[in-house]
Amino acid sequence: MSKKFNTSAPAPKAGVLLYGRHAILSAINNKKRKIHKIFCCKENLEELRGACLKNNVSTGLISVIDRKELDKMLPRDAVHQGFAMQCQELENYTLDEICQLAEDKQNCHILILDQVTDPQNIGAIIRSCVAFDTLALIVQDKNSPTETGTMAKASAGMIEQLPICRVTNLSRAISQLKDCGFWVIGMDGYATTYISEINKTGKIAIVMGSEGKGMRRLVEENCDTTVKLPISPTVESLNVSTAAAITLYEINKK
Amino acid sequence: MSKKFNTSAPAPKAGVLLYGRHAILSAINNKKRKIHKIFCCKENLEELRGACLKNNVSTGLISVIDRKELDKMLPRDAVHQGFAMQCQELENYTLDEICQLAEDKQNCHILILDQVTDPQNIGAIIRSCVAFDTLALIVQDKNSPTETGTMAKASAGMIEQLPICRVTNLSRAISQLKDCGFWVIGMDGYATTYISEINKTGKIAIVMGSEGKGMRRLVEENCDTTVKLPISPTVESLNVSTAAAITLYEINKK
Repeated sequence: MSKKFNTSAPAPKAGVLLYGRHAILSAINNKKRKIHKIFCCKENLEELRGACLKNNVSTGLISVIDRKELDKMLPRDAVHQGFAMQCQELENYTLDEICQLAEDKQNCHILILDQVTDPQNIGAIIRSCVAFDTLALIVQDKNSPTETGTMAKASAGMIEQLPICRVTNLSRAISQLKDCGFWVIGMDGYATTYISEINKTGKIAIVMGSEGKGMRRLVEENCDTTVKLPISPTVESLNVSTAAAITLYEINKK
Repeated sequence: MSKKFNTSAPAPKAGVLLYGRHAILSAINNKKRKIHKIFCCKENLEELRGACLKNNVSTGLISVIDRKELDKMLPRDAVHQGFAMQCQELENYTLDEICQLAEDKQNCHILILDQVTDPQNIGAIIRSCVAFDTLALIVQDKNSPTETGTMAKASAGMIEQLPICRVTNLSRAISQLKDCGFWVIGMDGYATTYISEINKTGKIAIVMGSEGKGMRRLVEENCDTTVKLPISPTVESLNVSTAAAITLYEINKK
């Protein structure tokens, strides 16, 4: 490293190491993100400084670092593009807060993931959520990875934009969402109705299980209805992030 | 390796090393795939033997191998699931053959990729092509990676199912497709029409550029029209494989 850490600063309690240009620039642009330190290769310094100044983030947080040092700090094969950041994880939303966000909305949708565990897939899903105006993402606390650099990178920085809520019990969360006026639709390859056939007005909560395995039985039993995507019988299933993107596109279509 | 290569067999000229359960089982199921050797961890032997017997592939091609040896043979962090295969690349189709495939069809669509270079994305796109009954995939020879293990894995083995054509000059290929009755639609974030608004009957060729950069100007000028996906202004673009999946879903929708 070309600079030492500022040792007078308090050590971060937990924190996460983000990387990649979009992830870092989006984090700088997010007032809620508590930044400890920003690392960049020399050639990115000017862009990073500009982003910090524009967003009232202290440029004193920036350390210029050799590419090889950055490689060492990050997961193997991480495509960091010469950008990294040590910061606090984003605060999760509570289910009550999600319901409040939906309160005044006539039409909105949220996505619920059951047992999706791959950070890369979750990151890609977060990016699609923001692209298709999804109000929030709900995941099960126990089986879902917390925020990681890989997830933020795969979201192209969109993790900064999306309210995420972690719940202990998905079935109970679904019940609460129903009480808040949500109609709960489970994605299931064995359903008889296509997603394009349903009424898309009102408050909709979509539930998706993991690739192959699908939703757990108890979660599925809590859905108001189940629908499927029209895919060729040649393919067993779509990648979960692909299926999520198509579903959100279809639900959000005017 | 628990067994040496059979040295009496002729050495493969080029060949590719595939890995992952779906990729290997799909390759065994593809009569056009010339297999040199199949590697598996002990626990997968029974499944692999069954697949070979079912598809008239000699079980003599199977070598049982330690997981660590398999790790060493394959790219770093390759999720091989205890399956690998040394085989010939699949034969590419010519543009004439693609036009022949389309000849008798009233409605069909093909996908053309301009400058998409990431094997992971191309693999994911191949999987979506098969899911949404895409007739063929056309890529530019110069800027597109040839078949790799990563690509086959990301396609979940669907690379065995999809006619792929490599052309030297995309603009010239587009002209030939027009002569064969294809209507050519370019995907462009700056277009004024949404993809859902177009007439989806007939023979359609969709052109997609790389993430961020889009199609090259000359390629775009050759399109009959351009359309876009309805995404929030918050996100700059979708991942190219996500955009392709949504586009193919929409084009294929009945």
